[in-house]
Amino acid sequence: MTIRYPNGRIYSENKKRNNSTPPKISLSHTNRGMSLEEKINDSNEYYLTHEIAVIHKKPTPIQIVKVDYPKRSGAVIREGYFVKSSQTDFNGVYKGYYIDFEAKQTNNNTSIPLSNFHEHQIEHMRVCIEQRGICFVIVEFTSSDEVFLLPSDILLEYWDNAMRYDQRKSIPKQVFEKEGFKIEEGFLPRLDYIKVVDKLINKISFI
Amino acid sequence: MTIRYPNGRIYSENKKRNNSTPPKISLSHTNRGMSLEEKINDSNEYYLTHEIAVIHKKPTPIQIVKVDYPKRSGAVIREGYFVKSSQTDFNGVYKGYYIDFEAKQTNNNTSIPLSNFHEHQIEHMRVCIEQRGICFVIVEFTSSDEVFLLPSDILLEYWDNAMRYDQRKSIPKQVFEKEGFKIEEGFLPRLDYIKVVDKLINKISFI
Repeated sequence: MTIRYPNGRIYSENKKRNNSTPPKISLSHTNRGMSLEEKINDSNEYYLTHEIAVIHKKPTPIQIVKVDYPKRSGAVIREGYFVKSSQTDFNGVYKGYYIDFEAKQTNNNTSIPLSNFHEHQIEHMRVCIEQRGICFVIVEFTSSDEVFLLPSDILLEYWDNAMRYDQRKSIPKQVFEKEGFKIEEGFLPRLDYIKVVDKLINKISFI
Repeated sequence: MTIRYPNGRIYSENKKRNNSTPPKISLSHTNRGMSLEEKINDSNEYYLTHEIAVIHKKPTPIQIVKVDYPKRSGAVIREGYFVKSSQTDFNGVYKGYYIDFEAKQTNNNTSIPLSNFHEHQIEHMRVCIEQRGICFVIVEFTSSDEVFLLPSDILLEYWDNAMRYDQRKSIPKQVFEKEGFKIEEGFLPRLDYIKVVDKLINKISFI
């Protein structure tokens, strides 16, 4: 399918993805050159075409300051700034459940620093959980090439303890191993996290 | 709460909203200068602060072509283009339900032309319904100052009949009156559509 810009140029999905990837997420060399975000996007595409789930990455919010309207072509943004999102990266629907999550990579091999998350994202997760959404984080420990899903309530617990009681400022990898769910990497889909979301839903339903 | 850009300038929510409003949605003079999108954004803010629902407008997707990195300040987008979204405008979570909708205004006082919707949005609604999401459109008939919520399955029915059997290319206002739900305008929230979503959920639960 070909999408064209108002100026008639062809829109390239790959080009867009490369440009819109937040610069902070570097490509991991241990993962055949694919970033965690790319693996999730690939998996989401697989879920969509196989009618398994409808989950998308939200566009990066941009503050537009100046727009030109050249003759015989569409609007061109001439001055814009990246705005820190107040929400999480991904959301969507799976079997009637609202799915909402954030994806992070860390080079640290024993824990992930809480500084990887922003207060707004944390508060967003908190209100989504209150509305009975299925909220979690997907964290890749790049040094060991392991990917985990951790329910957001555990992240919130660590966050609150750090903020209120000045406790540790990171979540140990052991917590991911014990209270999270390991996501196995495959080919199609690359990162079958929905299989793990099923486990999470079952766990929540039992409470 | 003050958000700052990487270059230290203060981020203004109002400024952003005005700039990011798609140019096609014009301000309606019959509605005290507030566009349908602004009324919905205001209502979403009310729902968020009152812990009623977590629903947000998705950022406008932008294709970034050129970025400058001036010394002593953050990245500046120097060439970017508006990309037509392949999804709907709003989504979120309410009482465990995945909510997904599109908002449209029309000056036409007897029907809304199907040309207001794009094939990608229609397909997005179709797959969301299959995943048991609550999908609808909010349509404002600006000439009579009336706002309706119409479940997406009715829109899909009209869309499919138009595409496959060359039937009428618009949805009559009577359909909104008969099969949709009227949304009353108020002060806080401006457009209490969640009240109407409750009716829709009840209707779906009975099937």
